[in-house]
Amino acid sequence: MKPRSSKTGETVIDHLLYRLSGVGVNHLFGVAGDYNLPVLDRVLAHPKVKWIGTASELGAAYAADGYGRTRGFGALLTTFGVGELSAINGVAGSYAERVPLLHIVVGPTQASERAGLVVHHTMGDGDFDRFARAHRQVVCADAVLRPGNALAEIDRVLAACLNESRPGYLRVPRDVALATVRSHRPPPLPRGWAADPGSLEAFRAAARARLAAADTVVVLADFLVDRFKARSELAGLLRAGAFPHAVLATGKTVVDESAPGFLGLYAGAMSEKRVRLAVDRADLLIRAGVLLADMTTGKFTHRFDPAAGIDLGPTTAAVDGVAFPDVPLAAALGVLTDLVGDLAMAPARARRRGPAAPARRVPALPAVAPGRILAHGPRPYRSLRPLTQSSLWEAVGDAIRPGHTVVADDGTSMLGIADRRFPRGARFIAQPMWASIGYSLPALLGAQLADPSRRGVLIVGDGAAQLTAQELGTISRYRLKPIVILVNNHGYTIERITHGLRAEYNDVARWRWGKVPAALGVSHPLVLKARSPAALDRALARAAATPHRLVLIEAVTGRYDVPPALKRLAINRPDRARWVA
Amino acid sequence: MKPRSSKTGETVIDHLLYRLSGVGVNHLFGVAGDYNLPVLDRVLAHPKVKWIGTASELGAAYAADGYGRTRGFGALLTTFGVGELSAINGVAGSYAERVPLLHIVVGPTQASERAGLVVHHTMGDGDFDRFARAHRQVVCADAVLRPGNALAEIDRVLAACLNESRPGYLRVPRDVALATVRSHRPPPLPRGWAADPGSLEAFRAAARARLAAADTVVVLADFLVDRFKARSELAGLLRAGAFPHAVLATGKTVVDESAPGFLGLYAGAMSEKRVRLAVDRADLLIRAGVLLADMTTGKFTHRFDPAAGIDLGPTTAAVDGVAFPDVPLAAALGVLTDLVGDLAMAPARARRRGPAAPARRVPALPAVAPGRILAHGPRPYRSLRPLTQSSLWEAVGDAIRPGHTVVADDGTSMLGIADRRFPRGARFIAQPMWASIGYSLPALLGAQLADPSRRGVLIVGDGAAQLTAQELGTISRYRLKPIVILVNNHGYTIERITHGLRAEYNDVARWRWGKVPAALGVSHPLVLKARSPAALDRALARAAATPHRLVLIEAVTGRYDVPPALKRLAINRPDRARWVA
Repeated sequence: MKPRSSKTGETVIDHLLYRLSGVGVNHLFGVAGDYNLPVLDRVLAHPKVKWIGTASELGAAYAADGYGRTRGFGALLTTFGVGELSAINGVAGSYAERVPLLHIVVGPTQASERAGLVVHHTMGDGDFDRFARAHRQVVCADAVLRPGNALAEIDRVLAACLNESRPGYLRVPRDVALATVRSHRPPPLPRGWAADPGSLEAFRAAARARLAAADTVVVLADFLVDRFKARSELAGLLRAGAFPHAVLATGKTVVDESAPGFLGLYAGAMSEKRVRLAVDRADLLIRAGVLLADMTTGKFTHRFDPAAGIDLGPTTAAVDGVAFPDVPLAAALGVLTDLVGDLAMAPARARRRGPAAPARRVPALPAVAPGRILAHGPRPYRSLRPLTQSSLWEAVGDAIRPGHTVVADDGTSMLGIADRRFPRGARFIAQPMWASIGYSLPALLGAQLADPSRRGVLIVGDGAAQLTAQELGTISRYRLKPIVILVNNHGYTIERITHGLRAEYNDVARWRWGKVPAALGVSHPLVLKARSPAALDRALARAAATPHRLVLIEAVTGRYDVPPALKRLAINRPDRARWVA
Repeated sequence: MKPRSSKTGETVIDHLLYRLSGVGVNHLFGVAGDYNLPVLDRVLAHPKVKWIGTASELGAAYAADGYGRTRGFGALLTTFGVGELSAINGVAGSYAERVPLLHIVVGPTQASERAGLVVHHTMGDGDFDRFARAHRQVVCADAVLRPGNALAEIDRVLAACLNESRPGYLRVPRDVALATVRSHRPPPLPRGWAADPGSLEAFRAAARARLAAADTVVVLADFLVDRFKARSELAGLLRAGAFPHAVLATGKTVVDESAPGFLGLYAGAMSEKRVRLAVDRADLLIRAGVLLADMTTGKFTHRFDPAAGIDLGPTTAAVDGVAFPDVPLAAALGVLTDLVGDLAMAPARARRRGPAAPARRVPALPAVAPGRILAHGPRPYRSLRPLTQSSLWEAVGDAIRPGHTVVADDGTSMLGIADRRFPRGARFIAQPMWASIGYSLPALLGAQLADPSRRGVLIVGDGAAQLTAQELGTISRYRLKPIVILVNNHGYTIERITHGLRAEYNDVARWRWGKVPAALGVSHPLVLKARSPAALDRALARAAATPHRLVLIEAVTGRYDVPPALKRLAINRPDRARWVA
């Protein structure tokens, strides 16, 4: 493609913002610091990228991650040393969970570096590269921009972020950020992963043989389908084959959960029995973008053989353990879809016995009935019972609407809600792999800004919420109106169940959650408290009817009560279930 | 020394806690995480070390730093990956400002490591050393403990922390932490820095000549006097020589500020003229433990020659640029004290002219009059004027008592209060070199626990306080009753003055500060608001009279108003003073 125009007078930061807006970034999160202030002037002046000032840099990183999960790319800008290191845990989470984003760090001028000045936010030893080296442990590409290399290095790092679906890091001395460059407004960065034709054909042959021999086929989908842009290809395969399918918690909502073939959440021994047996006993398990991690497999209690079946990774496919490199996920799913059509996929046993054989589908969950709980209204006995985790997740699950983005913090929140079937269109964000408590609240900020047409539903425990609560003020500052379900069980319940049921290290300071939104600057919040299923029903109904206000529902549950998934783990695999007392 | 006793059945974590209590650590800060829970049982069982659960890991790191500044050593314990990276900015600050502490990270078992398991809080790639490598950029020593090396590595890292007065890092797989070791309860770790006798004598000769030739001698003291345990030696020199002396902001309260020879704060062109001229024009400037950093020298506007005079670093002394290695700070101060006695230190000019020459002392500030403002009580006109930064710092400075530990956040808070003369015995904690906003609130938590006999006085702006406000709940949870002076000037005033006076990136969410303590779980707080000098006087008087409650005074000042130090910079060095609009 020919460069659109030749332009002079543009600065490095202008060009960088242009490049970011080209990959979907219209909001830049961060905290102002004296090194980056003149650079932020360029951000404020930018026609497409808006500055979102967060209360803390860790909040900015989590927000950029939530934004990246929603828009395909996120970005944050912090100040040298103090700011960037405050954000690094969030950036590391993006690496672990493969969210593409860019961490831009604006630091002292090159003149300060050359003179080795003892300036603030340094160690006073003239070494200005320490924090870039620290970041190198948690990003896929990094660079220090200089006037001579800025354009090339920006593109190199952004391309790596896109290709690997991971964060990158740019350190930009302030004078370099403001240096004029001759930017040719280059064409958009290439996206997508090229297949090797030979490898693809070899995969096709192996997959055809494997599919033809299979009696029962089940598909297990996970988050890499989302990160490697293969949602529609996966949907195509599920349409073509009508295969029963399940998701891991990391991959929740990568498929339409209202489809009849949807089994539910697979999580090893934490799964519902129906889902567990279907996945563990499938004759052929097709795994699409799956990472088998401790927290998503009930501590490795999956019973299928990870070396068997068809396993589709980001860029490598495998059939019964034989790897086919350079077969990207979307292409591999396309191949399987073609094969399913060719084979007219009746199961092998059925084909051997003739066309009248029974269909291989397992019983599906009843179709979702939005508003089921809300429709029948509060009933007397529901107001007498205390709120349990079981009734909490049932009610919250039923209150999810197609236009909701649900963000759940790690722990009982994630394990409780991930189990519930969502209506078609609803989105889910959680971080079970990196599992950094406090992630969800700022991630909600990012996700809502990334798609303001959707309402955010935050589900967070009181222990986790204390880590990043200050961003409630930021959420309100930018006029977002989510529903915040604060599960108050007085401490780290997930940890109590793991170890130290009554130990003081699992206690937290007792905040007065009803007062928190107003204190942190939320204007006109609607604050509700639910101690019974009936009160929760009423609160959820009011929240749904109040889209123009931030709603905080404090749902009080027992200190030692856990979601059904954890109870199943305790029953199925007591040896792995120090998670349940 | 002979080992005290031979003991078996002790675990690695027990031994580590024993070693920590030997260097003054009686409180361990941190956040529980599933990898560290069984290890925390050992902490709870320890007779000397108490677990302090903070709301966030960054809070734990800042608290450990404040504790380390007060007790000589601090410690925090976090969980692998998410916890340790959340804390790393605080640890880096300890490195920059030379606070000895230990960051203990408890992570997955060695079996998980060996198997390369995809466990939470990792990148899922079997690399368990990433975060230790990140920390290596911000600590002076680090180790991964194994059963075979644990005792030796603990001592190696702790010794490095003590010798360099900097943080160290230990990664401890959970099974290693709980492994039994044969600990001989070894003698305390060696402390102190040995002098080279030859170098010391050479320094003595050079210093004698320099002192003998000097007309006016002024001493400038800084924080390394505190970190390298030379406070009493410095006091000895000042007594012997009766030299006029000043401190940098980093070193505030390393000397008795009520002494007649105390000039005040030296900060280059930000200093009061009297202090600035005395230091810049001294014939001989003795610098004790001084680091000349941008923020402590009014952006390098000091006018003395850093290569001239006597410069005493942690372990190297220099006379007119000639370095004498292995001359530790305390020993060098001892040498100078001896020399002053020998020379009967009249100034050289006086000695040449005879004993009747005028004394070389510069006029001292009037002796501190504690309670001056409070004594005369509110006057009518003081309630009509709005509160200015000038009147704020005057009143707050006068309210400081000998038993106070004052912790000031970076920005106008630090620059405002550092300028005020403190009564003898009052202590000051700030972080002008690393300058991480939000540091002060958790640092106060640490400082108060380190010395509960002192009352904490926190001075923090509204922008900075938003970063770590959650630790207010922790402060109350551990029954501490500080005075919190929240300077509400609606955003980052220090940055407005630097650049972007009215830019939105210098705004923050508008919290309702009066509601914050109760919301964050502070029990029975006393909340006061001051918009005028008279109201501030009343509030400070009530705070002093209410030692049994946490007091929050919201002091409202103008959005663009700055402390006197910044005004002086603007007048003296307008070229460096983009700090003042």
